[in-house]
Amino acid sequence: MNVQYEVERLHARYAQALDADRLEAWPDFFTENGRYRIATAENEERGLPLPVLSAEGRAMMRDRVQSLRHANIYEPQRYRHMLSCVLVEKASGDQVRSIANFVVIRIMQDGATMVFASGRYLDRIVLSPSPLYEERVVVCDSRRFDTLLAIPL
Amino acid sequence: MNVQYEVERLHARYAQALDADRLEAWPDFFTENGRYRIATAENEERGLPLPVLSAEGRAMMRDRVQSLRHANIYEPQRYRHMLSCVLVEKASGDQVRSIANFVVIRIMQDGATMVFASGRYLDRIVLSPSPLYEERVVVCDSRRFDTLLAIPL
Amino acid sequence: MNVQYEVERLHARYAQALDADRLEAWPDFFTENGRYRIATAENEERGLPLPVLSAEGRAMMRDRVQSLRHANIYEPQRYRHMLSCVLVEKASGDQVRSIANFVVIRIMQDGATMVFASGRYLDRIVLSPSPLYEERVVVCDSRRFDTLLAIPL
Repeated sequence: MNVQYEVERLHARYAQALDADRLEAWPDFFTENGRYRIATAENEERGLPLPVLSAEGRAMMRDRVQSLRHANIYEPQRYRHMLSCVLVEKASGDQVRSIANFVVIRIMQDGATMVFASGRYLDRIVLSPSPLYEERVVVCDSRRFDTLLAIPL
Repeated sequence: MNVQYEVERLHARYAQALDADRLEAWPDFFTENGRYRIATAENEERGLPLPVLSAEGRAMMRDRVQSLRHANIYEPQRYRHMLSCVLVEKASGDQVRSIANFVVIRIMQDGATMVFASGRYLDRIVLSPSPLYEERVVVCDSRRFDTLLAIPL
Repeated sequence: MNVQYEVERLHARYAQALDADRLEAWPDFFTENGRYRIATAENEERGLPLPVLSAEGRAMMRDRVQSLRHANIYEPQRYRHMLSCVLVEKASGDQVRSIANFVVIRIMQDGATMVFASGRYLDRIVLSPSPLYEERVVVCDSRRFDTLLAIPL
């Protein structure tokens, strides 16, 4: 149960950082060589190695954030992450696996609000000295993406 | 707190099984004589015994799943369950009651994503030897249903 | 972890009371002098003291509920609250702070279902003798409000 609490807290801090547009904090939720990718459920099921977005290691993530900051001078949208159904399984030693459902809501500047993305987070997490993602795979249910806006999910 | 954890884990495993289209696993979340029904909030409040879908016992649930498999040869939608606000109360002995809010997102094959259903799960659960539903009542907020697609929620 | 459980349970009971239209119970989730306000993320960030709705103390909340009951003789909508990503931090003594993401779904009488509001709950909570809100600030992502329907969120 303590592990469940630690994992859910990591997920919550990650989500709230993104929702608050603190993208610069995003790489710090990963281990130094942590891996991140967004994929579609369809491609994952077919074994197609075509992630929508991927990064290996904090350095690459920091580059990614910088590009986003330069590209999106004006970004009026807001996002709100919702997580649910977090299943945690012990892996080896200090490592756990987590599967969680997510929905991301997008709020446009005019107030229009819609479901932007849904899917599953498939995570490998190390717990100590503090919980970090070794790997986070974001499997989106939809294959339709607003590709101009490749923010981390 | 341990009971809360056990109950939320049961809910999470149930939701992830349905979202992964593992309908054949659905009856196994219930006791042998477990009861399941989907109702509308309106009918529940008026005491009308008109469930949208109901099943008593695993055998009937397995029949139900088989019918669904035969009827829906081609099913392009995906679903994503979100649960929240899970309130657990001890009932008698090994039994607990759980009330939880839910939202189910539907993702069409073209990527269109919408809120498909919302409501409450009203559950009676036995905890040992492993947690199972004795009764799960799905009270939907909306009375409008996509009746052609009577999948379990 | 026990504190996390207590706080999430308070949030869940609050949400389920509102969703069941038990508005008269709403003030009882606050301390006698508890404060409540709904604000927009935009105004909060700019430091504008322009809440959409605010109340100080249970007495004012009860007045507010009574006005709502008199104004909305006929209220066909339903609401469904979803909470997620609950982060709890100890403050001083018996007091904790909680930040949580929320989404509220609205279900119209004809069955149409949409995302009504999203945002964050920023709470100050006292834990004993039983958990109550000393302050609940509802920061909504959207600045567009259905102002005719100023129900508590």
